[in-house]
Amino acid sequence: MACQPYYGEKFGELVEDLIGSYRSDPRTHRIGKRFMPSRNEIIEIIQNLLELVYPGFFGRQGLTEQNLQEHVENLMEETIEKLHRQIHNCLCYEREAHGEMRPDGTDPCDQKALRISLEFLERLPEIRDMLAGDVQAAYDGDPAATGTDEIILAYPGLLAITVYRLAHELHIQGVPLMPRIMTEWAHSVTGTDIHPGARIGRNFFIDHATGVVIGETAIIGDNVKMYQGVTLGALSFPKDERGRIIRGHKRHPTVGNHVTIYANATVLGGNTRLGDGAIIGGSVFLTRDVEPGHQVSISPPVLKVRPPEKPAE
Amino acid sequence: MACQPYYGEKFGELVEDLIGSYRSDPRTHRIGKRFMPSRNEIIEIIQNLLELVYPGFFGRQGLTEQNLQEHVENLMEETIEKLHRQIHNCLCYEREAHGEMRPDGTDPCDQKALRISLEFLERLPEIRDMLAGDVQAAYDGDPAATGTDEIILAYPGLLAITVYRLAHELHIQGVPLMPRIMTEWAHSVTGTDIHPGARIGRNFFIDHATGVVIGETAIIGDNVKMYQGVTLGALSFPKDERGRIIRGHKRHPTVGNHVTIYANATVLGGNTRLGDGAIIGGSVFLTRDVEPGHQVSISPPVLKVRPPEKPAE
Amino acid sequence: MACQPYYGEKFGELVEDLIGSYRSDPRTHRIGKRFMPSRNEIIEIIQNLLELVYPGFFGRQGLTEQNLQEHVENLMEETIEKLHRQIHNCLCYEREAHGEMRPDGTDPCDQKALRISLEFLERLPEIRDMLAGDVQAAYDGDPAATGTDEIILAYPGLLAITVYRLAHELHIQGVPLMPRIMTEWAHSVTGTDIHPGARIGRNFFIDHATGVVIGETAIIGDNVKMYQGVTLGALSFPKDERGRIIRGHKRHPTVGNHVTIYANATVLGGNTRLGDGAIIGGSVFLTRDVEPGHQVSISPPVLKVRPPEKPAE
Repeated sequence: MACQPYYGEKFGELVEDLIGSYRSDPRTHRIGKRFMPSRNEIIEIIQNLLELVYPGFFGRQGLTEQNLQEHVENLMEETIEKLHRQIHNCLCYEREAHGEMRPDGTDPCDQKALRISLEFLERLPEIRDMLAGDVQAAYDGDPAATGTDEIILAYPGLLAITVYRLAHELHIQGVPLMPRIMTEWAHSVTGTDIHPGARIGRNFFIDHATGVVIGETAIIGDNVKMYQGVTLGALSFPKDERGRIIRGHKRHPTVGNHVTIYANATVLGGNTRLGDGAIIGGSVFLTRDVEPGHQVSISPPVLKVRPPEKPAE
Repeated sequence: MACQPYYGEKFGELVEDLIGSYRSDPRTHRIGKRFMPSRNEIIEIIQNLLELVYPGFFGRQGLTEQNLQEHVENLMEETIEKLHRQIHNCLCYEREAHGEMRPDGTDPCDQKALRISLEFLERLPEIRDMLAGDVQAAYDGDPAATGTDEIILAYPGLLAITVYRLAHELHIQGVPLMPRIMTEWAHSVTGTDIHPGARIGRNFFIDHATGVVIGETAIIGDNVKMYQGVTLGALSFPKDERGRIIRGHKRHPTVGNHVTIYANATVLGGNTRLGDGAIIGGSVFLTRDVEPGHQVSISPPVLKVRPPEKPAE
Repeated sequence: MACQPYYGEKFGELVEDLIGSYRSDPRTHRIGKRFMPSRNEIIEIIQNLLELVYPGFFGRQGLTEQNLQEHVENLMEETIEKLHRQIHNCLCYEREAHGEMRPDGTDPCDQKALRISLEFLERLPEIRDMLAGDVQAAYDGDPAATGTDEIILAYPGLLAITVYRLAHELHIQGVPLMPRIMTEWAHSVTGTDIHPGARIGRNFFIDHATGVVIGETAIIGDNVKMYQGVTLGALSFPKDERGRIIRGHKRHPTVGNHVTIYANATVLGGNTRLGDGAIIGGSVFLTRDVEPGHQVSISPPVLKVRPPEKPAE
């Protein structure tokens, strides 16, 4: 970088000023830190996991009884390596952030990361079992579905639920950062934002997907169906005596079994409960409980209907 | 895969359990099946088609009268090959699913796939003609647009409409899976979910795009304009005597010509009709007809306005 | 391309008809034009800029005091080259569109493009300073955030704001097309649509991000917080005597300092002002001013609650 005749003498100044700005604020750089998850490799892990949980739908095609064993072994090996590396990064990231790295330089995270990786992969058959229920729920709930294959191949709601179910396991295991990176990737491609901390029962169906928000402390029962734009959100945040919001308490609703929530309905509050079998109509804004089996809908709004000033074109 | 000292003896168990889970549920794997569309190649086809319908905007730049012929020939050849292969996959996928493959092993889908591919590509000039109207409608409808080029390069609504118009042709031809994979790709990148079965007239404009849902049996006239978050959805699903939803009947609204639907309005029901020239205001929730030329808006909601407890910061 | 036995004689016809359709409409092709921004390279520029403003979070990891200087120099050099090329394309695109290319063939855009590129990059430290405030605002505003790193790595709202702040600088410099391509890329991956022309103060936080629309002429103060689905939109478009919408005047609201706007609220109109400290409740639809410090919420809608016809399942 001895000469920069093309950009002129400004080049050195630009670099210097930018580096100077790194030094002035620790929040927006990671310089001199050793551990950081790689978002790109975490997305690769999601792709690998989708291939493992829905074999033949994504990635390699033409799976047969003959080539299956070798395919799964190779893919599993690749997945373990990446999982191990990224969970390791996330665990050590947290220790480094808290100043808990060992003074002797030995690695406190490696064995734990391997253990979590293997325990997570052991859970895949059970997760697959739940996903089969989600796929069936989508087929049973959507008259436009031509079959369950279409749902796995194309429905954004199922993709969001799948990534959530995988990320939730890592969240339970206490892996920092990675679960949220996973669900935010799904949010980006599906428009559905499910926090990995939410607890969601079996046979869950989200149709159309865009704009759905399910908060960190939401609890959802079995056989729940919801549509685009539904929010299970927080009502307000209590603050501590220094005016900072308090983290960690239940802020989002509890939804029973067999509940349906139609498009763009908003349900807020950590104490708000929707009883089993409740039906929440489209665009309802709700901050109180609904009894089991009850239906809630907005009163037909008094619409102002204005006849045309001139004949319609 | 003889030794796995690194991951320990668990590795074999993980693979075995996962493969075991594949055997227990036919819904979530495609093992031992021959035909499956490739989502990746279908996305490549969309990219090729965008380059063919908007030459010079996407993909290769610097097109001139001199290099145009060769460029289009090469791109067309590539597109036919991929289209032929993926339509073939989709047609045979369906036959295989229905147990209709020929016992003598000959291929019943190849010629049909080629015929559909060519007929589809023959329709491109007509589709381009419609798209030019959509581009113009966006320019005429959005004061923020600086020109029609910006709309083709950057507007998500136009991208969603373009992919819908392409997918709709394949839907009409009866190609399974592929049209929906195409529109769901567009949904993922634009936030607009248009089912390939919907019927949409000329000069259609969607502004801001995120959260729009247009259902399978919606019918939309010419010169319609809609904004973010608009749903043309279903009211409820009739079920058969066994409690399963009935597929295939008209569930979504009919929208006349010259209709405008503002942001986050919801219009539901297969019998709901918006007459020519109707204007539906923002956030309106509508399950009944609107006469031609009429305007519908929500009554200004009785807002609770609470003055500050303490002076504003 | 002498023989096409495979696709039959139709091939030539397909190509001819498609090329014929290019000739019939100038709006949907760029043939014989020299200048066009490359969307792909503009996305690469965004990636480079993210790496420059949040070093160590995206792209290269393991940055240290030792390797930082060389890393930033290399990345800066790469970024200048791409910026220079694309800004050049955009400037000459506009001149070509307006028939303002120099008759002697000399390039009127090159020096200007370089100057704008360097001035833009000079602004990065100041932009970084604003972004640090946005990161902190997200942490202070979201009880689910575990730290500021998670926000930079995963929060779509911060990504949308970051790309907006970068694009806004190029918008101010008068670069055509590129700023909008940048914010529409962010719209695609985050669901938040911020026009590069909007003016937004410090410490801005958007939670959940999907469906947010901030129009071209919106003005937003400092310390503003908003949630998914919020629209700052236009009320209606005045038209000129020939029935064409008038471009360029203020159509979107003005939002004061310390304002909070909850999920799915809609605020419309160029004259609408939300005073300092105002709180706009979820799903509010607003076309009039709110006084400083006042809270506005929808009256609890009269919900129709229908008890179950049969016992809940």
